[in-house]
Amino acid sequence: MDSYEQITPAVELQDRVTAFQESLRQDGVDGALIVQKTDLFYFAATAQQGWLYVPAAGAPILMIFKEFERAQAESTLEDIVSLGSPKKIPDIIRERGHQLPARLGMELDVLPVNLYRQFDSIFTDSTIVDVSTAIRLIRAVKSPYEIQLLRNAAACSDAVAGKVPELLREGRTEIELAGELEAYARSLGHQGIVRMRLWGSELFYGHLMAGPAAAVPSYLASPTGGAGVNPMIGQGPGFRKIQKNEPVLVDYVFALNGYLSDHSRIFAIGALPDELMRAHAAMLEIQEEVKRFAVPGAISGEIYEQMVASAEEKGYGEWFMGAGERRIRFTGHGVGLELDEFPFLAKGQQLPLTEGMIIALEPKVILPGKGVVGIENTHLVTASGLEPLTKMEDEIVILAG
Amino acid sequence: MDSYEQITPAVELQDRVTAFQESLRQDGVDGALIVQKTDLFYFAATAQQGWLYVPAAGAPILMIFKEFERAQAESTLEDIVSLGSPKKIPDIIRERGHQLPARLGMELDVLPVNLYRQFDSIFTDSTIVDVSTAIRLIRAVKSPYEIQLLRNAAACSDAVAGKVPELLREGRTEIELAGELEAYARSLGHQGIVRMRLWGSELFYGHLMAGPAAAVPSYLASPTGGAGVNPMIGQGPGFRKIQKNEPVLVDYVFALNGYLSDHSRIFAIGALPDELMRAHAAMLEIQEEVKRFAVPGAISGEIYEQMVASAEEKGYGEWFMGAGERRIRFTGHGVGLELDEFPFLAKGQQLPLTEGMIIALEPKVILPGKGVVGIENTHLVTASGLEPLTKMEDEIVILAG
Repeated sequence: MDSYEQITPAVELQDRVTAFQESLRQDGVDGALIVQKTDLFYFAATAQQGWLYVPAAGAPILMIFKEFERAQAESTLEDIVSLGSPKKIPDIIRERGHQLPARLGMELDVLPVNLYRQFDSIFTDSTIVDVSTAIRLIRAVKSPYEIQLLRNAAACSDAVAGKVPELLREGRTEIELAGELEAYARSLGHQGIVRMRLWGSELFYGHLMAGPAAAVPSYLASPTGGAGVNPMIGQGPGFRKIQKNEPVLVDYVFALNGYLSDHSRIFAIGALPDELMRAHAAMLEIQEEVKRFAVPGAISGEIYEQMVASAEEKGYGEWFMGAGERRIRFTGHGVGLELDEFPFLAKGQQLPLTEGMIIALEPKVILPGKGVVGIENTHLVTASGLEPLTKMEDEIVILAG
Repeated sequence: MDSYEQITPAVELQDRVTAFQESLRQDGVDGALIVQKTDLFYFAATAQQGWLYVPAAGAPILMIFKEFERAQAESTLEDIVSLGSPKKIPDIIRERGHQLPARLGMELDVLPVNLYRQFDSIFTDSTIVDVSTAIRLIRAVKSPYEIQLLRNAAACSDAVAGKVPELLREGRTEIELAGELEAYARSLGHQGIVRMRLWGSELFYGHLMAGPAAAVPSYLASPTGGAGVNPMIGQGPGFRKIQKNEPVLVDYVFALNGYLSDHSRIFAIGALPDELMRAHAAMLEIQEEVKRFAVPGAISGEIYEQMVASAEEKGYGEWFMGAGERRIRFTGHGVGLELDEFPFLAKGQQLPLTEGMIIALEPKVILPGKGVVGIENTHLVTASGLEPLTKMEDEIVILAG
């Protein structure tokens, strides 16, 4: 595999920029300055350090501080310049024949205050407005090119989960098993870094935990937490030894060429108690229900409510997606270059599904003191409902004890 | 190792909070609201989701959204409350007998604009000011407790580099070797996530690259870049096969119980060209020079200039810390809970060294088309200069070809 295999085609960038420009014009924004690394990669095909100016009409200008030659090799945009200081951005915009924007869009959901103030002092006559929701709405609907990259990532998710039976043995610590599985993921080209947009959120590969440790809640907006290796991290695998007859959750994200596949499977050394087997089967039933009714036009918040109602009906209301007052109020999320993309299948969400959206659907039961069962697959929204991008069977994998 | 081995002692938190309160009073700030995960862990011993209010005088209040019981188990602060919404923070502050702050400190170097605006609307009568520099100055000087944690991390760095000869073989890809070394690091308790404060910066373990690939520059404020596995990541190991007679850079961060040790060693299968051996020896000489003159009171920017001057004198001016116009202008950096802490041995920096500071010193030569040589060790600033926390030899490790 060559490191420059995945150069985003020029036509892809054109479509994305065009969609964004339509959105800017609708919102009365004259131009946007993209600075966040993931959005920059989405619109410019490079994550080198720089600034992308997208006027409401006309060609985008990619200004690169570091590393210019690398950005030139990666980006299929036409207008790429080397720039030593953001103070010169207004000059570049004017040189291209644009007026400076009266209303300038920026990513105010992620941009730190001090950096914002720097741009505010550079664009003294502009009002800076938030275009992050507009960007996220565009990014939520994937092109065929992106869907293929997501299929590639999902195939790697299957491969990683498929490797678990070879590595899982009684008495190994969660963290040891995690390390070996991660090494295998790396050998397949996993990029390591898993991007999350929500400030203060982070994830290291995912959640590999067993038995009661998997049911330990954490700060993260996720149904599962985990003990983690220390209070600074506070999630994920810890030093607990994996035992027989307990569910081993392997909820890992495969990050390939920027795109993420979110995937959970349950393993066990020896049989699991019936209670857990039944709960898992109930979660698979919920997944099948959603696959049918999550069609274009379905409202994301209503899908969440339907899943909650179904879990309650099946007797799992108390432990569905966590336990207690602060359990998370979502059952699935969009995924792409970031793990927390639109749409959110979450309480109160009004966004309707559209063909080409990608949803990591994760009905899970968290039984305090016992463990976690359930499923997660990354799906494509099609005209007839959800199509899983993954191939591996959803059932619990029981290994000889 | 138990996941809760490293509960930060109460006396440690008291000292940190006291130092911060002195700084707040000096700056005329009435109280600070800490929200960033790393700062929260530093002052409250937990990284669960919440808000820490530190009044200029009086006991700090830790308000936890999620996960309250976990924060209670981790934090040795006395006043910990469960709180469902940040809107109630002013009530909590008043209930404790404090007036609401006229000047409220927040971490404006990292806090996103939209979140800032939320707090601005909650503290309607307060002026929000930036206290990030004050926090970073306090965090720059480590306590004996922290120094011990850093020594533990440094010992793991040595262990990881010491494992390389067992795993390094001709024809393996950088990414394969990286994965196996990372699995070993995980088995020692590496937390995975390496925190950086500078927005848009990220690092996955570090930079393991060989030959010309190690000399490929990237967007990162680092002397080395690397091809990486794709343009979205744009740094670190790639898919290139490691060959004989080329320098293999293993520049990895060990993150143990929150604390980071930054460490580089050079390996080779078979002999290296004399040019590279000489360049490496020159970097070791520079390291020895700095160890003596980096004493308390020395100015961080002047240490940088001395290192640059020494590199020029030795004939490496053109390739010291990178090549070309946008090469980085630093030769070392503070390290602790984050990788980019004060002090920076960087152009123009005026901060004097203090006993108890920790500096990752990294004189390196980047020879385009050939590779990277040089050294990095994490040091403690003592009365007599720098004491390395690492034990491994600094010389290039030549393996039988």
